[in-house]
Amino acid sequence: MKTIEVGIIGATGYAGVELLRLMTTHPYGRVAAVSSVSFEGKPISEVYPNLCGVCDDTLENEDAVIEKSEVIFAAMPHGLSEPLARKCVDAGKKFIDLGADFRLTSEEEYKQWYGLPYKDPELHKKAVYCIPELHRELVKDKEIIANPGCYPTSIALGLAPAVKEGIVRLQSIIIDSKSGVTGSGRGLSQTTHYPDCNEAFSPYKIASHRHTPEIEQTLAGLAGEPAQITFVPHLLPVNRGIVSTIYVDLKKKMGLEEIHRRYQEFYKDERFVRVMEPGQVANLRNVKFSNYCDISLHVDERTGRLIVVSAIDNMVKGDAGQAIQNMNLLCGIDESAGLKMIPPAF
Amino acid sequence: MKTIEVGIIGATGYAGVELLRLMTTHPYGRVAAVSSVSFEGKPISEVYPNLCGVCDDTLENEDAVIEKSEVIFAAMPHGLSEPLARKCVDAGKKFIDLGADFRLTSEEEYKQWYGLPYKDPELHKKAVYCIPELHRELVKDKEIIANPGCYPTSIALGLAPAVKEGIVRLQSIIIDSKSGVTGSGRGLSQTTHYPDCNEAFSPYKIASHRHTPEIEQTLAGLAGEPAQITFVPHLLPVNRGIVSTIYVDLKKKMGLEEIHRRYQEFYKDERFVRVMEPGQVANLRNVKFSNYCDISLHVDERTGRLIVVSAIDNMVKGDAGQAIQNMNLLCGIDESAGLKMIPPAF
Amino acid sequence: MKTIEVGIIGATGYAGVELLRLMTTHPYGRVAAVSSVSFEGKPISEVYPNLCGVCDDTLENEDAVIEKSEVIFAAMPHGLSEPLARKCVDAGKKFIDLGADFRLTSEEEYKQWYGLPYKDPELHKKAVYCIPELHRELVKDKEIIANPGCYPTSIALGLAPAVKEGIVRLQSIIIDSKSGVTGSGRGLSQTTHYPDCNEAFSPYKIASHRHTPEIEQTLAGLAGEPAQITFVPHLLPVNRGIVSTIYVDLKKKMGLEEIHRRYQEFYKDERFVRVMEPGQVANLRNVKFSNYCDISLHVDERTGRLIVVSAIDNMVKGDAGQAIQNMNLLCGIDESAGLKMIPPAF
Amino acid sequence: MKTIEVGIIGATGYAGVELLRLMTTHPYGRVAAVSSVSFEGKPISEVYPNLCGVCDDTLENEDAVIEKSEVIFAAMPHGLSEPLARKCVDAGKKFIDLGADFRLTSEEEYKQWYGLPYKDPELHKKAVYCIPELHRELVKDKEIIANPGCYPTSIALGLAPAVKEGIVRLQSIIIDSKSGVTGSGRGLSQTTHYPDCNEAFSPYKIASHRHTPEIEQTLAGLAGEPAQITFVPHLLPVNRGIVSTIYVDLKKKMGLEEIHRRYQEFYKDERFVRVMEPGQVANLRNVKFSNYCDISLHVDERTGRLIVVSAIDNMVKGDAGQAIQNMNLLCGIDESAGLKMIPPAF
Repeated sequence: MKTIEVGIIGATGYAGVELLRLMTTHPYGRVAAVSSVSFEGKPISEVYPNLCGVCDDTLENEDAVIEKSEVIFAAMPHGLSEPLARKCVDAGKKFIDLGADFRLTSEEEYKQWYGLPYKDPELHKKAVYCIPELHRELVKDKEIIANPGCYPTSIALGLAPAVKEGIVRLQSIIIDSKSGVTGSGRGLSQTTHYPDCNEAFSPYKIASHRHTPEIEQTLAGLAGEPAQITFVPHLLPVNRGIVSTIYVDLKKKMGLEEIHRRYQEFYKDERFVRVMEPGQVANLRNVKFSNYCDISLHVDERTGRLIVVSAIDNMVKGDAGQAIQNMNLLCGIDESAGLKMIPPAF
Repeated sequence: MKTIEVGIIGATGYAGVELLRLMTTHPYGRVAAVSSVSFEGKPISEVYPNLCGVCDDTLENEDAVIEKSEVIFAAMPHGLSEPLARKCVDAGKKFIDLGADFRLTSEEEYKQWYGLPYKDPELHKKAVYCIPELHRELVKDKEIIANPGCYPTSIALGLAPAVKEGIVRLQSIIIDSKSGVTGSGRGLSQTTHYPDCNEAFSPYKIASHRHTPEIEQTLAGLAGEPAQITFVPHLLPVNRGIVSTIYVDLKKKMGLEEIHRRYQEFYKDERFVRVMEPGQVANLRNVKFSNYCDISLHVDERTGRLIVVSAIDNMVKGDAGQAIQNMNLLCGIDESAGLKMIPPAF
Repeated sequence: MKTIEVGIIGATGYAGVELLRLMTTHPYGRVAAVSSVSFEGKPISEVYPNLCGVCDDTLENEDAVIEKSEVIFAAMPHGLSEPLARKCVDAGKKFIDLGADFRLTSEEEYKQWYGLPYKDPELHKKAVYCIPELHRELVKDKEIIANPGCYPTSIALGLAPAVKEGIVRLQSIIIDSKSGVTGSGRGLSQTTHYPDCNEAFSPYKIASHRHTPEIEQTLAGLAGEPAQITFVPHLLPVNRGIVSTIYVDLKKKMGLEEIHRRYQEFYKDERFVRVMEPGQVANLRNVKFSNYCDISLHVDERTGRLIVVSAIDNMVKGDAGQAIQNMNLLCGIDESAGLKMIPPAF
Repeated sequence: MKTIEVGIIGATGYAGVELLRLMTTHPYGRVAAVSSVSFEGKPISEVYPNLCGVCDDTLENEDAVIEKSEVIFAAMPHGLSEPLARKCVDAGKKFIDLGADFRLTSEEEYKQWYGLPYKDPELHKKAVYCIPELHRELVKDKEIIANPGCYPTSIALGLAPAVKEGIVRLQSIIIDSKSGVTGSGRGLSQTTHYPDCNEAFSPYKIASHRHTPEIEQTLAGLAGEPAQITFVPHLLPVNRGIVSTIYVDLKKKMGLEEIHRRYQEFYKDERFVRVMEPGQVANLRNVKFSNYCDISLHVDERTGRLIVVSAIDNMVKGDAGQAIQNMNLLCGIDESAGLKMIPPAF
């Protein structure tokens, strides 16, 4: 088949460079151009020496990337993707946004959580938010894909069967997530300075993280009614991975086997979701560097709560990997192309 | 004042050696003898070279320790402290148990969670469970102190004011705790093998950890009515520290300032509890190597939940430090003697 | 081309499971069977849940592996490979030993460092030690390949051009190596217990590590005269990677550019060796999870010493990856088949 | 005895805050004032929440610190201490410099390595460089103490007996040091960004680190003749600690026991140097958070080299702790006052 020419805007951020790494071995795609505001004109392997001899492409600007590519990925801070998407759509190119600009369908909520209005509301009609396992049928004919946030991916996949089947109380959802430090990106901060971050642990943006409305939007979509959650992310002293521990009241008493059966049924055709056997516990170690989402299920019989543990690699299934999965979907090719990485044991 | 002669049974476990380290600089106590089943006859500094030149005492057996000491600390697996306590009581010595044998007041619950009956029920009448900030008035005339578990300490201190004041729904408590690896002790296991544990993260003993009834017992004692919690511990890839993130429904709407005021009032005379200012977040980095418990308070106004973050050093306030605090209490000396360690910035 | 049927004996050790992971995506090889003494009869994904859905093969015994495979890899403690190799040779199969049994060509030295005689001296004539970049022409017609040790690989590649060109004093070589903890394998020990290993660092087996004669053998082979080194390995608190810092006196004054030029020339056709530009420094971060060896060169002009820094992933180029490279060589296929992994940026 | 009023200039850097932490429990000293350019006017516990309730002093400016104190510690980038020292000397105060301005006795070398001339050469006559174990007799009547660098402390203590006794070849010294990340200070950089630093390892400033002339100066002082070393520091992914592995040719064959005996004799009255038994290996784990320097000795009999392993806590014996030791010396009090911290086992 014809090679897909792919461009990456923001290629020197962590999401961008991970995407570049994964795309470099994609069987049907080819990285045609990469851009970076901070390092324009330099070979990317000068910024990331791990890429020496693998990809020594010179970083260009965004216009060059758009021109040379059919599918453009943008890994930019929020607010910067909308104008890029407009350029791509006008040029007849597909646009996959790893940022937040197209994730929320309600402009109201976007304003509230991100402090900005839509600058180009028409554009949002061409966009769709897509966790492939949950929304793949919505992608057809769309020009823009909003690639989901890392936390929302781990959480939505962890809760989808229970919410869809209506076995849990929507207003009782409490989510305690822990993310590796790459989730904070390449930018320097005191919080991610090694001696401040190593041998340390704490939550942040408690009940105020911007992924909250995105999670609620997905859950509401599955349930057909509004959901309101408590969501608390924590910074975990590891490079990669998210574990979300999710607590929710069962509407009525239900055994672990029955819940497990429903989860297995829900995900039976999914390559990237592994519903673990009763007794096993999801661990980020088992999904690192892969596009898998591992889900383990637990019932607290004393209190009637379901506890779901969901583990992903925040940079792969939670970011660059899922973006490629979305590209595959958009281009009508095997959804798992370029994503067959096996998680290492260590 | 007269020096207190102190003995440590199980001195080569992690709790034992931390206790030894802290006691070595105690202003009124003196380590008279230490014992170890595995290393009897060796100098402890051979097992722990960090102690070379500081404490080169030879490890003896438990009887020698009991004979030479007035106060005996035991850091033993559950089931082994009861007979030791009997020996101490009969010899007129005080006994502080860092293990679990005397923590639960209900033999029923002890049987259910630990799988053993009390072998010497009379002995339990001489024992008291004591988190000093909550139970210090109960210690008088007791001969045995049950030193609390690490998770229960972080959780009980984090919830006590809210529960005591009756502002939260007791049946809604969900606790997501994360503990450093020293919590698993010195014994080898695949889970704590460096390459399996580093760059990994997961919960364990989900809704089935033995600290559950201990937490419920303390909360019930504060509330005057039963409490039933969901408790999920996680293994955190750091050496030391516990962070408990606690979720609970407020009975009625209440602002952060008001809750903060009540917590400050509750702990106003406590040296080791630091109620952080609104906006700050408790982090294990700030309490490491110290006897502090840092508590930060957060309200999720959208869902009406109180979120408490409680951080301690699992080996100090969660174990050896609190044991010394209990010894001080038992001996009628300054409760903070030997516990003035300042947490390092890194 | 015809698929190569491959077997792995000792598949649940760290080298074995890494080999399995890499072979699973090999374009021309297929894992026909895996064995384990400790876990025979269990699916390997039960021991390594990262492999769930990827490889759920049942662990068999060594005879089954030999029977089902054309090429047999053995990842066993020293002393156990010799009889396996005999079985394979007799059955007309190729044997690649990840252990130490065939690494030393001098039985004398083997006895001295490993404490064992050769049990089957004839067999050693069919064997060849092979770092492909240095010894690939020796492999033809051999039936047994001794896959090199991790430290020796990093060191030999780092020194080969300088030694081969005769620009350094052979008796002045000092090697200070640092290895991630996977180098110690899956077996439990106090040294690799997380709290003993994390936030710790020290050398071990100082000037007495068994890789010493192997390094000297390779250097002597390159130089055409004996070499005697000082070699000190250190345990590094990371999962993967080796950095060797190598100090050697230059025979006569020579500038960095000239040395760099010679190294580039020496390795100009090598896919897996990256000679870094003057000014750059090799870092294990840049080679993790890949088959690369990064080499940086530095001259201490004040003392006339050459300093070579060599970085590899101990489990890939230092172990399973190089074993596959050797298999490719042995089978006459593209030497880089199955080894195109790109090191991640983080 | 009279309390010593102490001031800290640059208290919010890592060295400054560690010094503050240690001084807070000093039996004879009292922190009278602290300053910071970046955070002037704020309580230091706002910058370092670990200090809440321990030290909530407001950060002032340097003049206020000098005015309120008898002994002034300055933890400043090089070039900034000289004018501060002048102010202190003129005001009759003692000055202890944790920076580099007074470490080199040769202005020539200072210019060469630091790129600056002395601005106030007269001042240097009042200053003395002091590793107490080696130079304590030089301190009398001095007004300025140059507190040694972290690497030079670990190295000089590791080599002093061998060099002083003349048993090693001075021109053969090769030093491979590894330092925890706090050695890079509180300032942000890509190198110390958690995901770039964690699971990474490499040398830096190879044969060009500014501590080189300082090490050579000390060794030359001990030997009575010039020394020229190769020194390569590495960044170790831990918070604290330095391990220096030192390689040096023995002038003539000498057994480990004999060398060990000489080291023990040399350090027999030193509280903070622990010469380990033959067979033991120095590990930073055993000295963390303490003022100890652990030294282990090893002979490579095959090559006739002595290998010394020296471990310190870079922030204590390598920085703030040694500064206090120097203060004690300067003030004529017990040299170990305030420095009795016992290294924790984990």
